[in-house]
Amino acid sequence: MAPLECYLDVLVIGAGPAGLMCANALTMVGVNVRIIDQRPVKVSAGQADGIQPRTIEVLQSYGLAERLIREGNQMHMCAFYNPGRNGEIERTARAPDVTAPTARFPFEITLHQGAIEAIFLDSMTLHGTNVERPITPSAIEISDNVDDLSSLSSYPVKVTLEHLDAEDEQSRTEILHTKFVVGADGAHSWVRKALGISMDGEQTDYIWGVVDMIPDTNFPDIRNRTAIHSTNGSCMIIPREGDTVRLYIQLSDTDVVDPASGRVDKSRMSPEKLLEVARRTFYPFELRNPQEIEWWTIYIIGQRVASSYSVKERVFIAGDACHTHSPKAGQGMNASMNDTHNLAWKIAHVLRGWASPSLLKTYELERRKYAQDLINFDKEFSTLFSGKPRSAENQDGISHEQFLTAFQTFGGFTSGVGVHYSSSAIVEVRHQRYARGLIIGQRMLPQIFIRAADMRPVEIQDMLPADTRFKLLLFVGHLTETRISQLNLLAKDLSKPTALFQKYSPHGNIPSLFDIVAVTAGKKDDINYLNVPALFRPHWSKVLLDDTDVTGTKGGNAYDRFGIDTKDVIIVVIRPDGYVGTIAPSTALEDLDEYFGSFLLPQF
Amino acid sequence: MAPLECYLDVLVIGAGPAGLMCANALTMVGVNVRIIDQRPVKVSAGQADGIQPRTIEVLQSYGLAERLIREGNQMHMCAFYNPGRNGEIERTARAPDVTAPTARFPFEITLHQGAIEAIFLDSMTLHGTNVERPITPSAIEISDNVDDLSSLSSYPVKVTLEHLDAEDEQSRTEILHTKFVVGADGAHSWVRKALGISMDGEQTDYIWGVVDMIPDTNFPDIRNRTAIHSTNGSCMIIPREGDTVRLYIQLSDTDVVDPASGRVDKSRMSPEKLLEVARRTFYPFELRNPQEIEWWTIYIIGQRVASSYSVKERVFIAGDACHTHSPKAGQGMNASMNDTHNLAWKIAHVLRGWASPSLLKTYELERRKYAQDLINFDKEFSTLFSGKPRSAENQDGISHEQFLTAFQTFGGFTSGVGVHYSSSAIVEVRHQRYARGLIIGQRMLPQIFIRAADMRPVEIQDMLPADTRFKLLLFVGHLTETRISQLNLLAKDLSKPTALFQKYSPHGNIPSLFDIVAVTAGKKDDINYLNVPALFRPHWSKVLLDDTDVTGTKGGNAYDRFGIDTKDVIIVVIRPDGYVGTIAPSTALEDLDEYFGSFLLPQF
Ligand SMILES: Cc1cc2nc3c(=O)[nH]c(=O)nc-3n(C[C@H](O)[C@H](O)[C@H](O)COP(=O)(O)OP(=O)(O)OC[C@H]3O[C@@H](n4cnc5c(N)ncnc54)[C@H](O)[C@@H]3O)c2cc1C
Ligand SMILES: Cc1cc2nc3c(=O)[nH]c(=O)nc-3n(C[C@H](O)[C@H](O)[C@H](O)COP(=O)(O)OP(=O)(O)OC[C@H]3O[C@@H](n4cnc5c(N)ncnc54)[C@H](O)[C@@H]3O)c2cc1C
Repeated sequence: MAPLECYLDVLVIGAGPAGLMCANALTMVGVNVRIIDQRPVKVSAGQADGIQPRTIEVLQSYGLAERLIREGNQMHMCAFYNPGRNGEIERTARAPDVTAPTARFPFEITLHQGAIEAIFLDSMTLHGTNVERPITPSAIEISDNVDDLSSLSSYPVKVTLEHLDAEDEQSRTEILHTKFVVGADGAHSWVRKALGISMDGEQTDYIWGVVDMIPDTNFPDIRNRTAIHSTNGSCMIIPREGDTVRLYIQLSDTDVVDPASGRVDKSRMSPEKLLEVARRTFYPFELRNPQEIEWWTIYIIGQRVASSYSVKERVFIAGDACHTHSPKAGQGMNASMNDTHNLAWKIAHVLRGWASPSLLKTYELERRKYAQDLINFDKEFSTLFSGKPRSAENQDGISHEQFLTAFQTFGGFTSGVGVHYSSSAIVEVRHQRYARGLIIGQRMLPQIFIRAADMRPVEIQDMLPADTRFKLLLFVGHLTETRISQLNLLAKDLSKPTALFQKYSPHGNIPSLFDIVAVTAGKKDDINYLNVPALFRPHWSKVLLDDTDVTGTKGGNAYDRFGIDTKDVIIVVIRPDGYVGTIAPSTALEDLDEYFGSFLLPQF
Repeated sequence: MAPLECYLDVLVIGAGPAGLMCANALTMVGVNVRIIDQRPVKVSAGQADGIQPRTIEVLQSYGLAERLIREGNQMHMCAFYNPGRNGEIERTARAPDVTAPTARFPFEITLHQGAIEAIFLDSMTLHGTNVERPITPSAIEISDNVDDLSSLSSYPVKVTLEHLDAEDEQSRTEILHTKFVVGADGAHSWVRKALGISMDGEQTDYIWGVVDMIPDTNFPDIRNRTAIHSTNGSCMIIPREGDTVRLYIQLSDTDVVDPASGRVDKSRMSPEKLLEVARRTFYPFELRNPQEIEWWTIYIIGQRVASSYSVKERVFIAGDACHTHSPKAGQGMNASMNDTHNLAWKIAHVLRGWASPSLLKTYELERRKYAQDLINFDKEFSTLFSGKPRSAENQDGISHEQFLTAFQTFGGFTSGVGVHYSSSAIVEVRHQRYARGLIIGQRMLPQIFIRAADMRPVEIQDMLPADTRFKLLLFVGHLTETRISQLNLLAKDLSKPTALFQKYSPHGNIPSLFDIVAVTAGKKDDINYLNVPALFRPHWSKVLLDDTDVTGTKGGNAYDRFGIDTKDVIIVVIRPDGYVGTIAPSTALEDLDEYFGSFLLPQF
């Protein structure tokens, strides 16, 4: 009997953070997707655990942040310990853990990877998609046929799957014909190797001992993220959900490498031995043996990035499959999720025939550069972290000031809120001057407005769900008589079937592609939201007002902060992933048309 | 065959807001409770719909506010319309809907009663309790035997229940022997009548037409709570969840009373006729016929309060069963829920043998006075609302200023945050001067602190769950060397088995009765939470710091605001329902002992 054959739009290989973000984003918007993993069951403890401010914002855009916040621990403060006069460690400083003034969530969340993944798994289940396991791919082929590759109705990628728990040989193999594949299969990615993509970067690996436990200690910063630099080694404390605390202990080759084979030998280590190493760095504070070790590992990782992220824009790799980092700055999992957050909406748009396949090129463009920057940052940070601290004997060591400055300078980076995509089809900066406070290519700033119909304060980011729609924020200024007539004219112009609203919208149905929000200037005492033309007010909740709420404590000052002149009418385009795509004044609608025309397909 | 007989701790009759709050509070803390209702199914639309700021705080203390906030509409602004020069209405003002500066949630939530009840029903189900329906009581008897009445092991109340859907006569009747009964069976309370309790107050009833619909209108305040006073009558707008809006239309006898019988005849009215009446008050704004009427009613209600709330502190009445109000200020459902919020923990304490049965007397004391105040307020408010507006012809009418002043003056009252219980066994004001900002007898003020171990901002109200425990907030001041020794001595004193902590705690297990939180003064840069003696620090999360969070935007200034001198060590006792019970300096432990001794029973 021939193996089962199946046709599919998107196959996601690997159900770690990158794969889950991808499959969830796609299933939420109705894309025909399957996700497989070689592991028979999901992760239950350990592995990565830190979620950064920007990733919380992203999860919020999928409606998933609430649960994360409920279940996770929050890190608000970090602390630094360094050798004091007698070589005993003492606290040099405490500092905010997040140094990114625009972060909506000014803290990191820590939660074990299994619990984070469960948030995605439950969301996917609600949308009818579950991880299929244990399954591995055994072969992948991409058609060479130009017609196949350029057509959206063909299935140019063929993947052979092996159902590892199949009851007999016949049901073991499955042939899948698919339009797109996302390889999110981790640092040892089979997809990457099958595609012959190399990993570039340092060859040396860092070796970390990791222990999760409920500590018994008199260390006063045990619930803060703490970096300990001692004359006896370095250690990092990551407080976690409940009473759990993770210790990262940097190891040297002599600790774990088998001199005979030259390979890391986990059996040379044990949690007790790891704690013994940590204990030396804690001195004079006590780190007593905990009742139980929840999880431990030896985590070996280098800093590398893949030479390419895609083959023919039909097969992509994402997450650890294309970039790996030391766990110190807690970037790995965040970068992985944000890769597929960037990719998923693009795949959806192309699949629906709304966008040109060329849109997919922006994935590598945006995310590979980011990974490289991250590696550079991580190297600098790691050197600082692993270097010997400055002391009386070692005047060349790293001073605490050096460390702290690096830590704070990189705040935008480590928090993820500073990510800046450069110019491309989807990032057009020509009219940046009309809103200098909103950086084109960066994520839309959090800002509280009040709704003009009911004066309820709302966070603008909550009006930008990751639903594949472009959000058009229309800053209409003060609703004077003149402005109202001007807006009515604009609405009339934009209502034409040939105008950009309808042109790119499937069946001319604007709300499938564009979500329009009007932002007025004025005062809550006399604003009348009904004065905004109906085209710019698809629902009463979509007219915002740049004023404080009734308590005077929330909202206001956005026009100023964004650098928008109320004399102009300004359109801010937010991409489906929450990044500012472009900005244009209402007098330059042709530029807006050109922007969308560079990647969207006219629908008639 | 004899009817089924059953023994039970608490029977709740009626599953409206009062009964559900009661049953949920009791089942959450493990009390053996049943709840019955005569209706075969739960309410699905209409009825009451407004939840006030204090009620949101209370729901939060049961972990139920999050869902309410997610599902409900928020009213932040209210608007007032009055006759203009030509008799057409025009807006006189907009004003904050809630005028209570300390409200944690500075808005009202509106949601149909069925959805509000569902929040309780789901919570109860999680704890194993469901409403049994359709069941009515047919007889109730309270034992006269003094021993029975004073013993906690006997079941002095006998209730006969009729299972209305019983398949045969035999299974229809059930005899219940119970320790306590809570009659929460609404305005026409069977329990109240069976106990012969009279309702006192005005005999006249107000008649309201109520319509729930999605309006089609050009009225600019349709999403704000709006009071329309027109020369053609009065109308009130209550925006609701989704796009629904409720109109309250005050009717006169001629609209609905059958002249022949003198009784209200609902058939004389229809939603169309009600809208017609409303339309006249809206003029010159249009109120077009909606596509659908979601719900409508003629709601007839007087302002009355029961002469007594309990018989022998074994049977209680609560909610509409003991007080009714016009729906204008939206008090009814809130007062009802807060009745049983006040009662439930007292019943739990007495049932467990922790408190003397005399504690139950404070229920009537506290809640009946509140209902009377409410009636007085409501009368004043209703007169204002129903009165003719002042106009050129009617100089004696009510001016808008009068109305607005009343509206704002009563802000503390209508929001519920101003509720003030007077002195009693559980409200002891002797040492009020040690914390003038925390009014003994009022609910604990919301205030953000940061946790000293991890600097995470927390709302103190979130550390006061309705779990029947007394919360002891220990304001320990600055942790100087002297203060630390002083605290260690205090801890030593209070650790004695004869000291009040252990004395009243079952089996000497302090955390069953007291939840201790230490509040330190100081700075996040150098605070060491481990300096608080272990007795006052049952968990690392229970040491708070009166400082701002790392962003400098949340928390701080509590010592000042509460009027607490850091030179003293002050103990603030919060009752299980979130009200400040008493305050004492650490130098007056004997007064604290006396306070608890007046209603708690020593446990050895
Ligand atoms: C054992 C382990 C320990 C770790 N410890 C830490 C740590 O202490 N700190 C830290 O910051 N990070 C740690 N990491 C890394 C962190 O988990 C990753 O950075 C993060 O999960 C990246 O997400 P990802 O989805 O790209 O890859 P992964 O989370 O690695 O997910 C890849 C998924 O693909 C599956 N897969 C792999 N190959 C195949 C295949 N051929 N067919 C089908 N499925 C396949 C895997 O089973 C896995 O579920 C650890 C990773 C591992 C594996
Ligand atoms: C039809 C109706 C319309 C209303 N409309 C409005 C409105 O428009 N605006 C407004 O503000 N308020 C309105 N109310 C009042 C509002 O619902 C109450 O103020 C609020 O629900 C009080 O809560 P409660 O639990 O005390 O009483 P209720 O909500 O009345 O609950 C009493 C419960 O007891 C049950 N019950 C009654 N008698 C018995 C019995 N003998 N045996 C067993 N169970 C019994 C009832 O079925 C009911 O479920 C309305 C009430 C009703 C009944």
